[in-house]
Amino acid sequence: MKTPLRIGIAGLGTVGAGVLKVLETHADLLEMRSGQRIVVTAVSARSRSRDRGVDLSTVRWYEDAVALASDPDVDVVVELIGGSEGIARDLVVTALENGKHVVTANKALLAHHGNELAALAERRGVALALEAAVAGGIPVIKGLREGLAANAIKEVHGILNGTCNYILTEMRETGREFGDVLAEAQKLGYAESDPSFDIDGVDAAHKLAILTSVAFGCPVDFAAVHIEGIRHISALDIEYAKELGYRIKLLGIARRNNGGVEQRVHPAMVPIDSPIAAVDGVFNAVVADGDFVEKVTFVGRGAGAGPTASAVVADLLDVARGRIAPVFGVPSGRLARIHTASPEERRGAYYLRLMVVDRPGVIADVAAALRDENVSMEAFLQRGRAPGEAVPVVLTTHDTDEASIQRALTSLESLEAVLEQPRLIRIEQF
Amino acid sequence: MKTPLRIGIAGLGTVGAGVLKVLETHADLLEMRSGQRIVVTAVSARSRSRDRGVDLSTVRWYEDAVALASDPDVDVVVELIGGSEGIARDLVVTALENGKHVVTANKALLAHHGNELAALAERRGVALALEAAVAGGIPVIKGLREGLAANAIKEVHGILNGTCNYILTEMRETGREFGDVLAEAQKLGYAESDPSFDIDGVDAAHKLAILTSVAFGCPVDFAAVHIEGIRHISALDIEYAKELGYRIKLLGIARRNNGGVEQRVHPAMVPIDSPIAAVDGVFNAVVADGDFVEKVTFVGRGAGAGPTASAVVADLLDVARGRIAPVFGVPSGRLARIHTASPEERRGAYYLRLMVVDRPGVIADVAAALRDENVSMEAFLQRGRAPGEAVPVVLTTHDTDEASIQRALTSLESLEAVLEQPRLIRIEQF
Repeated sequence: MKTPLRIGIAGLGTVGAGVLKVLETHADLLEMRSGQRIVVTAVSARSRSRDRGVDLSTVRWYEDAVALASDPDVDVVVELIGGSEGIARDLVVTALENGKHVVTANKALLAHHGNELAALAERRGVALALEAAVAGGIPVIKGLREGLAANAIKEVHGILNGTCNYILTEMRETGREFGDVLAEAQKLGYAESDPSFDIDGVDAAHKLAILTSVAFGCPVDFAAVHIEGIRHISALDIEYAKELGYRIKLLGIARRNNGGVEQRVHPAMVPIDSPIAAVDGVFNAVVADGDFVEKVTFVGRGAGAGPTASAVVADLLDVARGRIAPVFGVPSGRLARIHTASPEERRGAYYLRLMVVDRPGVIADVAAALRDENVSMEAFLQRGRAPGEAVPVVLTTHDTDEASIQRALTSLESLEAVLEQPRLIRIEQF
Repeated sequence: MKTPLRIGIAGLGTVGAGVLKVLETHADLLEMRSGQRIVVTAVSARSRSRDRGVDLSTVRWYEDAVALASDPDVDVVVELIGGSEGIARDLVVTALENGKHVVTANKALLAHHGNELAALAERRGVALALEAAVAGGIPVIKGLREGLAANAIKEVHGILNGTCNYILTEMRETGREFGDVLAEAQKLGYAESDPSFDIDGVDAAHKLAILTSVAFGCPVDFAAVHIEGIRHISALDIEYAKELGYRIKLLGIARRNNGGVEQRVHPAMVPIDSPIAAVDGVFNAVVADGDFVEKVTFVGRGAGAGPTASAVVADLLDVARGRIAPVFGVPSGRLARIHTASPEERRGAYYLRLMVVDRPGVIADVAAALRDENVSMEAFLQRGRAPGEAVPVVLTTHDTDEASIQRALTSLESLEAVLEQPRLIRIEQF
């Protein structure tokens, strides 16, 4: 009989406690599936007294998480501390250097240091497994790296941040403004007290950078991700989106374009009948488009103790089964440096909302600014009249170059009758 | 450098040609991803002269597919012949006995003989890989067996037959009757000239039996699947479904129930806002519900050359990477004999459509028949009047036992005023 696979877990917050729970609940099932008993031999966490619902009396405790990486009775380190630097990074580096497998849910660490860490893991011949870092419980890393491995991927896009998707869904369903819904989400525990990582798109960008690498076989390049968050989305935009047949989602999109790959995180309008439009609340979704398989969609819970623990333990099973794959699908040394396509190279449709003074000639000026950049309008909405006051004017464009629409925006901003910064939301036809 | 992995392909129809195309197009990419060159060394097909778009001049040809299983220059046999008996079965058995890996898209073979074949593959220490047998290009076998392996699965359900989903979608969108749409589907190549395997639910049941085994770790038990097809679905039912807020889909459902697992394939009404309701046309979808991850949904193309070849080649990559898993997730000898829950044990809501003579007292008789079996009505629709003539009466029930509704049906059929066999469609609330 095989000796047990010995696990050390660093970080016993919600997800860590979830991992303990899965390993305890399904000890026999997991052994049957992997052919090896999985046992927790060591943990590290701030509070030793907190009740995590699992008996930890026989487990070694470390004050210093990094010391866990040198425990001879640990085969696999599960890193659930988080953060791209500091303890989490030291722990992972030390564990890999010591020839221990690492399973992590840390997207920030991988987005910033994934390339060096992957190379280190390969040199040591150990796993660096990261299913839990992207889209929580959805097995999308495995799906891309193995399930769709027969394809060249043309595009991968998705809803990668449950907090933003929850806020946008609530805004749509209740008609309330962003700040109001955010405050409620914080109260309910769906948003952090400092929500900026989520609502400014940084978390989604971390995940997108990892997905891009796995999908296209290129090094992780977080700096290349164009990032816009959802703070500026107003109830008005959501209302107009409905009227125009769209929903607003914070999307991560990585797409082959002009021989390179563009990576973008921003709010986008998607047609109401596209599969991703129906993914609401805290759910995540990833759509991969392969040259043979065409579009495959994965939907599920992107966060939470159970779903994230499910992904962590799936990675542990892969380690137990001896399945150690190159982190990003191909050996680090063979990751192709693909040129980064600038978001300026995007071609697509746009939604524009202007607040203008309601007086004669304003619409003509707006139309002229667009015409001068060869931007052709598809729809134009102006309702009600309020002479001399501010009214919203909304328009959508036919496919146009991002550079053109940006130049048109600059002209529009300079018009005296345009009162606020115009709002631009990209339209994605999936 | 590793020696190449040598492939023999039996059956060069649409999917076989697709596999050749993928292996040729992505030869370098696949080698980079798997660490091993994949080369086709032998094929078997009826017509040697047909142009398959790929140069086969250097490849060994076999008239007799089974002989391919003894070719010493073949490491992996790809079986794309189809059928649960005869050549396909002989080929797979011989290949496994000869210690060759087998990759197959043959759901009928696996549904009928999966248990013996899995045991044989394990004895010989080779792979029997079957991703392409279920839901075409969607990596759902891998998703369940590995991606969600940390979970006990509570339920798996899905749209497993693209032909039926196409027909039902067309019926809904055009209002036409089943026979009319089927004839068109046959003309377009979406349905076979003998369509019974698809439209009578047998193909979906083959796939469900395999999914059930992978999801619940029990032997394949095709005989336990309760099967109803879509022949009796009328335009009228589809119209009523719309009105009641449902869509009609042919579903495969495997669910833990009373300590056993029930397996059913039948048309069902699903709420219009459930994710699976939006899966239209030839698309397939599978939803797995795990105890930690909760619901994960996979959507994509369930058939066709590209998607199916994508799944076949993904399996070849797993073989090249040395990833040989137990066929149904746990070693054959440890598959748990789970008792088969009878469909009679189902509890849920139902849709009933009766054609009755429009005359006083009929509705009272119908209501009495239901009351006598403790079936409680949720909605009741009767529109228009046609004294003395046949009119449809439609009702939906609250949750009730299948046994009760079946007894009520028997009573209803015996009423003189009920003119045709009543139509019963199960309602599934996902």
